[in-house]
Order: sequence, then structure tokens, then C-alpha cells
Amino acid sequence: MGNIKVGVLGANGRVGTAVCEGVNAADDLELVAAIDRDDSLDKLVEAGAEVIVDFTQPSSVMDNLKFCLNNGIHCVVGTTGFDDERLAQVEKWCADNAPVGALIAPNFAISAVLTMVFAEQAARFFDSAEVIELHHPNKLDAPSGTAIHTARGIAKARQEAGMGEQPDATEQSLPGSRGADVDGIPVHAVRMTGMVAHEKVIFGAQGQSLTICQDSYDRTSFVPGVLVGVRNIAQHPGLTVGLENYLDL
Amino acid sequence: MGNIKVGVLGANGRVGTAVCEGVNAADDLELVAAIDRDDSLDKLVEAGAEVIVDFTQPSSVMDNLKFCLNNGIHCVVGTTGFDDERLAQVEKWCADNAPVGALIAPNFAISAVLTMVFAEQAARFFDSAEVIELHHPNKLDAPSGTAIHTARGIAKARQEAGMGEQPDATEQSLPGSRGADVDGIPVHAVRMTGMVAHEKVIFGAQGQSLTICQDSYDRTSFVPGVLVGVRNIAQHPGLTVGLENYLDL
Amino acid sequence: MGNIKVGVLGANGRVGTAVCEGVNAADDLELVAAIDRDDSLDKLVEAGAEVIVDFTQPSSVMDNLKFCLNNGIHCVVGTTGFDDERLAQVEKWCADNAPVGALIAPNFAISAVLTMVFAEQAARFFDSAEVIELHHPNKLDAPSGTAIHTARGIAKARQEAGMGEQPDATEQSLPGSRGADVDGIPVHAVRMTGMVAHEKVIFGAQGQSLTICQDSYDRTSFVPGVLVGVRNIAQHPGLTVGLENYLDL
Amino acid sequence: MGNIKVGVLGANGRVGTAVCEGVNAADDLELVAAIDRDDSLDKLVEAGAEVIVDFTQPSSVMDNLKFCLNNGIHCVVGTTGFDDERLAQVEKWCADNAPVGALIAPNFAISAVLTMVFAEQAARFFDSAEVIELHHPNKLDAPSGTAIHTARGIAKARQEAGMGEQPDATEQSLPGSRGADVDGIPVHAVRMTGMVAHEKVIFGAQGQSLTICQDSYDRTSFVPGVLVGVRNIAQHPGLTVGLENYLDL
Repeated sequence: MGNIKVGVLGANGRVGTAVCEGVNAADDLELVAAIDRDDSLDKLVEAGAEVIVDFTQPSSVMDNLKFCLNNGIHCVVGTTGFDDERLAQVEKWCADNAPVGALIAPNFAISAVLTMVFAEQAARFFDSAEVIELHHPNKLDAPSGTAIHTARGIAKARQEAGMGEQPDATEQSLPGSRGADVDGIPVHAVRMTGMVAHEKVIFGAQGQSLTICQDSYDRTSFVPGVLVGVRNIAQHPGLTVGLENYLDL
Repeated sequence: MGNIKVGVLGANGRVGTAVCEGVNAADDLELVAAIDRDDSLDKLVEAGAEVIVDFTQPSSVMDNLKFCLNNGIHCVVGTTGFDDERLAQVEKWCADNAPVGALIAPNFAISAVLTMVFAEQAARFFDSAEVIELHHPNKLDAPSGTAIHTARGIAKARQEAGMGEQPDATEQSLPGSRGADVDGIPVHAVRMTGMVAHEKVIFGAQGQSLTICQDSYDRTSFVPGVLVGVRNIAQHPGLTVGLENYLDL
Repeated sequence: MGNIKVGVLGANGRVGTAVCEGVNAADDLELVAAIDRDDSLDKLVEAGAEVIVDFTQPSSVMDNLKFCLNNGIHCVVGTTGFDDERLAQVEKWCADNAPVGALIAPNFAISAVLTMVFAEQAARFFDSAEVIELHHPNKLDAPSGTAIHTARGIAKARQEAGMGEQPDATEQSLPGSRGADVDGIPVHAVRMTGMVAHEKVIFGAQGQSLTICQDSYDRTSFVPGVLVGVRNIAQHPGLTVGLENYLDL
Repeated sequence: MGNIKVGVLGANGRVGTAVCEGVNAADDLELVAAIDRDDSLDKLVEAGAEVIVDFTQPSSVMDNLKFCLNNGIHCVVGTTGFDDERLAQVEKWCADNAPVGALIAPNFAISAVLTMVFAEQAARFFDSAEVIELHHPNKLDAPSGTAIHTARGIAKARQEAGMGEQPDATEQSLPGSRGADVDGIPVHAVRMTGMVAHEKVIFGAQGQSLTICQDSYDRTSFVPGVLVGVRNIAQHPGLTVGLENYLDL
């Protein structure tokens, strides 16, 4: 089987550069086109790209997807800004050009995605669950979107299993000590010089705990997840939202 | 729906006592018979037990299972000493009395079982994987059976995904520093006063790591897993080996 | 040098039993008197006790200390309920019977005491510091007294080093997510089935973090600290409050 | 009090650049000279440098130190290659120009230095101690020099306290599982894609453990330690080897 031919859009940006390096380092992938804003998309067709990776801008991503999907090129997309209307449009382009596929994911850090998936799977087996996330001190929001999403997934799994509130006999407490309440799951946010992005999900049951913990050490941690997308998109025609749907767990 | 009626065999032992307490504390379970070595098994039938839990001895467990399965009582079994011959016998008793079920598991610590399952699921997404287990210093074997089993599961998943050896440029090393080699997965064993039983599986990929970590704080950590077995055995006719098969992940 | 002769008061209680076992297991200590509520304190003198350990009740501890100190017996005390008046009284008994010593400590878990001491030492070298404590869900207060004490020690060390507020750009946050504010140090409390008592102090500086972490796995974790007290009290005449003063760090 | 005037040698290198940025970001320090290989050292004197930081080459560092010390400029040195002869020479230059100071340190990562110091302090209070270090897979040696140094410090502290061997009942083991034996302290090395440099020292005593853990997330983690050196060198005349001697713990 030949290598998968890959085009990268936004190839000169910080993220795009890391994607190009990742594709080049993979034995089973071939970088056939590195496109940036002044390049014509026609180059993708000329180069025979089978899959593109788009980390560009909300203002350009829809034009990119329209072109690629209409040319039968699969699209792995990390660009943000997709609302329901945009997703419906992408779904239509996929349907019109079946069996082409589009993967749109808010988070390509495979360790973070797996943490969320495993947390949802584990939730119904444990009386207690809490989430702790740690980030650099320049982050503007607390908790992180990923931590909130994780907590919601745990809460949903507990609810579906008919579980009630978590045990907590606290009577006297300093405000904030027990964290933020996200659908009944306490979420704690640490902000600290030196940290990058880290998430810890802790589950407790009689005599034991299970901890699922994710550390991002630098800003290229999305690359392995992007490559999972590139390698598997041909088996996922149509629109898929979220890398977890590609993991076959 | 009524409560599940549970009998406990070996009820006066340390383990059986904890099982009885766990059943009594559960809203959806009812302890109808607590049997120890001088009690007649007939009590189980008289009490209407639907499921029994057996933490007894290899010398008595087969008689217990024969009686219970032949009386249509499901069996959750933590007793050790099952070889292929014994498993075949139990399978036959189950078949003869369908749809009765038997669950035989070497490890009922739900956090340990999930650690193994998640480790196998995660393995193919990461370049690197190592296992660290920590136990009290009176343990006779190193690494623990659970850690070896975990490493083998990771190795198998890597192999099935066509992954090669782990990256490791080590040229100079002190003997033992890189751990035991279990099918290509390094396994490290710590022995330490104060510890109970702990396992940590670490995965690494570009810019990130995923850690799945299990701590047993006391010797009753098998109870939640036993209750998972009791609650779900009616949906699993026949012989099942390993609690992971009940988790519907 | 001969063994140190030790008497234990409250010897039949849960804590006292563990202390007796600890003394018996130590090569350099000899248990010469195990006293409980119906025993005469004279036995301590008859047995030649050099040091006593008192884990009794606030209602009886002052009588015990008066007797022992007046008889020249050093006192290691884990009983609670000491206010300034009681401490002054103990100090006077020590002075009247110099060079006898009394050690009164709220926390004998050596790992917890060292965590506090190291946290204070490390504080001025790091831009950021936060405390996370984890306990069983039956605990009534949050955060734990130990965590609050640790945070205050860090805050004091930062202030003495002329350090300002911690960096934190958070603009949008869910209430509670950033923990309780203890003198400027965020403290997070986790309550979870299965946990015993755990504390984690995290420090961050450019490109790095330092974590000091303490786990209590069972309720005998005070024993090693008590033995440190017993072994060193002869070198500490007079009243000492806090085990950290015996550690010679 | 005015700012401390700092010169940086090797200012255009990767390390020197990070030092310059660190000095510039500090309110109490002023970068007065950024010297690289083609610059004259006279610039340091002209600029009034009070302290220099040298991260250059073994081939040039001795000339740099001779010039600076003879001009009464304190020297913070991260350059490698100092043998006893070189150290004696630096000591002599310091003595000839008292009270000038020179700090030569193999490791300026403050979290790593504190981990070693705290490990030595804690060692005698715990029955068990093991070291786990984790690094990227391109590292050539295992265990790391820092981990070996840490283990030796623990072993020395145990020996001085008259402690014997660690408890370990292991009878059956896979080769390597119990780590490398460094003076009786087991040391485990993990090599993993994504990791940077991490060290964990675990101590165990009855019912408890203490873990001191250091994470380096990027290659600028030496900067805070260098600034500790710069700020305190005026109080340390003469030659000092090792940043730990500046920490006033």
C-alpha cells in the first residue's frame, strides 16, 4: 500500500509547521503540498493530495473545505469557529461528494481526548469523581474548556447509571475550597508559572482510587492526534465532529 | 424491581466479612445467607439466594459451584486455583443449567481492572509505554502479576497495530535501571514500607503523556468489583473469566 | 548504650495499641509500662520509664503530665486540647524539674510535618504555590487544618522574602474553581470515597515545578513520628510544641 | 538600594539568550553587558558589571573567570569541565581578590536542587526510599546523573543515621524490575517520547509515604536558579560549588 499523500493548509504558521514536520517524520505519510495564504488551492489537486490538514482561520476555512471536498480530498480540520450552520454546510459538501470525509475537532491532543473518553467510561463504577486542571498563569478562563467538558461527560454517565450525588459530609468550609460545581462534579483549577496544560481526573471507590492524568509539555502535542485523523479519515466518510470517534475504543 | 438476593460463602473470613458488609450497605442487594465451613449449602436454596459470592478455598470451591449452578444460582467467584480442567467443568455445569452464569476473576479491584483495559485501549496511540508498580515490602514477587499482565496487554496492542520497538537511545546504563523487559515494555517495581498496592501506566507521545494510575489503600478494594459482578451476572449466562467482560466499555 | 524505657498511657485505645506495637518493634526502645485508665501512674516509676507517650483525653492529660514531669519522666504528647494556659503550666512543670522535656504536637505524621517544613523552605524560590488536599468524604471541614497551616507557612515565607501576589490572569471563572484563598495561597480540597488523608503542595517557576506530596494510607501513620519524639526528647529539655522542632533539618 | 548590574557571557547562545531575558525581566537586576565570543571582556568593566553569568565553553571559561575575578566581578558559572585543578585555581583567584565570589554549579534547576536537598533531609525518617527519573528517549545514560547523585545523598544520610538495608522480601523477580542499586537505593529510569526531565523521590514509613517530585517542562528551567546565584553571590565570598549552598535552608 502506498503512502497517504497529505497537503497542509496554513503551512507556514506555528501550528502548520509542526504538522508538516509530523507528516515528514511519518513513514506512511507523504507531504505533497504545503500551502499558505498566497498559494492557490489548485496545487493540492496537482500534487494529488488525498487528505488535507487545515489549521487556518475561521475566515478562510470554509472556502478551503468547499474546494477540497468538491475535489474529493478528505479534510482534517483544527481551525475553530464552527457553528451549527457551518457544520450543516460541511455535512452537505461531504454528502454531495461521497465517500469523502471531514473531521472537525476542537482538541487533537490524543492524551486529552483519551482522558475524556476513559473518564466517561469509568464514571459509573466509582462513588466519587473530581477534576483538577493545571495551566500556565496567562490563561484567561478557569476551569479550562476541556475540564468542563470532562466533568459534564462524567456527570452524564453518572446520571445514566442512576447514580445520585457524591458523598460529601463537609459542614465547615472556606469558600472555593471544594472547587467549582459542574453538574455535580467538583472541578479545581490551578494556575502556575512553568505549567503548560495538564488535567487529572480522580475517581474514588471503597479502598481505592483511579487517576487518569494528561500532561501537555509543549505546544506540538496536537500532532499525533492529527496524524490519527489523517490515517483513518478514509474509513470515515461524511462529517465527524470530535477525534474520539476515530479511536475505535 | 426487587432486590437481588445474595448468599456469601466463606462469610466469616476476612474477605467474606467485607463482602457481607458491602452487600448489606447496598440498597439494591439483600444478604439472605452468610455461609461458612460448617453450614449446609442447602441454606442457600432455602433462603432463595439468586447469586452467591465465593471467596473460599481451592479445596472447597468446586463443590460449592456444583451445588449452586445445579440449583440455578449464579456464582461470582474470587477463589483461586482454576486451571483449564476446572474451567471446563464449570462451563459444563453452566451449560447444563442454562441460563445460569459463573464469573471467575483473578482481580476484583475495579480500578486495577479498568487500568488494564484502558492501557490496552490507549497503547497504539503512543510511541512509548512503561509500567511502574509499587507495593509493600513483604511482597514476594516482582513485578506484580497485575503489572506483568498489563504490560503484556500493551505489548499485544502495539503488535496488532504494527508498532515497532520503543524509542530508547540509552548507551550507558546501570544494570536494572531501565526495568524488566516484559514483551518489550519496561516494568519497574518499587517495594516500600507503608505502600499497599499501586500501579501506574505511563504513555508518551510528542509533547504529551497520559498516565493511568491505580491506588489500593486497603484490603477491601475488591468489594465494589464484586458488587458489579453480582448486579450484572444475570445478563451473562455461561462461564465468564475476568471482570473486564462485565464492564460494557 | 541501653534501650530507652518507654511507658504508654492510654495503652488500650486504638492509638495507644499502635504506639505499643511500634515501641515493641523498635530495637532501641523497650516498653516497660502499658497504662490504661484503671492503672496507677506509680507503675511508671516502678518500671523505670524514662519517656512516656500520652494519647489519652484532655480531661486526664494534665494529671498525667504533672505526675510524669515531677518524676523526671519525659513526655511525648499527642492528646489534644492545649490552650495557652495549659502550655504555660506544662512549661512551668518542665522548668521546675529541669532538664526534663515535654513534646506536644498536633500532628505526628512525619510525612505531613516534613511536607509543611519543606514547603516553607521552598516557597521563596517559586513564583507560584498552591495546595491540594484529598480526604475521605466523611471529613467535616474543608480545607483540612494541615492544608491551611501549610498555606499560611508558604504565605509567610513569601512575605518575608518580599514577594508579591502570585501571577494569575484569570478573567472568567466559575465560582470556586480557583480554590479557597488562604493568605493569597489557593487551597483546593477533594473529598472522595476510598481516600484516607493526602496533601500535595505544588510550586511553579520558569520551565519547572516542584511537588511535595504526602499520603497517609492508614490510621497508624503517626507512629514513626512518635518514635522520633521518644528517641530525641532527652536532647530537648523544657516544653517544645511541634514535632518539626525535633527534626534538626 | 540600586539594581545589581549583570553581564552575560555567551550571550548569543541558546542558554545565554534565556539568561539575558531572565535578567531583563527581573525588577532588581540590570543587564549592562551581553558579551559573545568576538566581544572584549573590557566591556564588562566599562559597563560596571558587578556579577557575570558564564554559560560558555570549557576552553574559554578559565580566561573569563581570571579576568572577571581579578577585576572584582562576581562570577556565576554554569559552564562544565571543572576538575580539582581548575577549582583550586578559581579558589586562588577569589582569595587574591577577596571578597569577590565565584559560584560554580552543575545544576541550576532550582526544583532539582531542592529535590536533592530535601531528599537528604528526609532520608533518615523513612524505612524505604527509591528514586524514579523520567527523560526523553534520546538521553544516552540511565539513570541520570542527578538521580544517581540524589540516591547517593539518601544513602549517605541513611548511613550516618545508622540505618540498615531497606526492607524487601522479594524472592522471585524478573531481572531489572527492582531497578539499579545505587549504594542500596533502587533507582528506576523511564525513557519516553514527550517527556523532558523529571525526577521523583519516594519515601515510605509505616502507613504513609512522602514524595518529592521535580518536573522540567522546557530548557529554560535553569534561569530561576541562575538569578538566585546572581542575587546572593555578594554574600558568599570565595569559591562555592553547588547552588544548594546559596539556599539558606
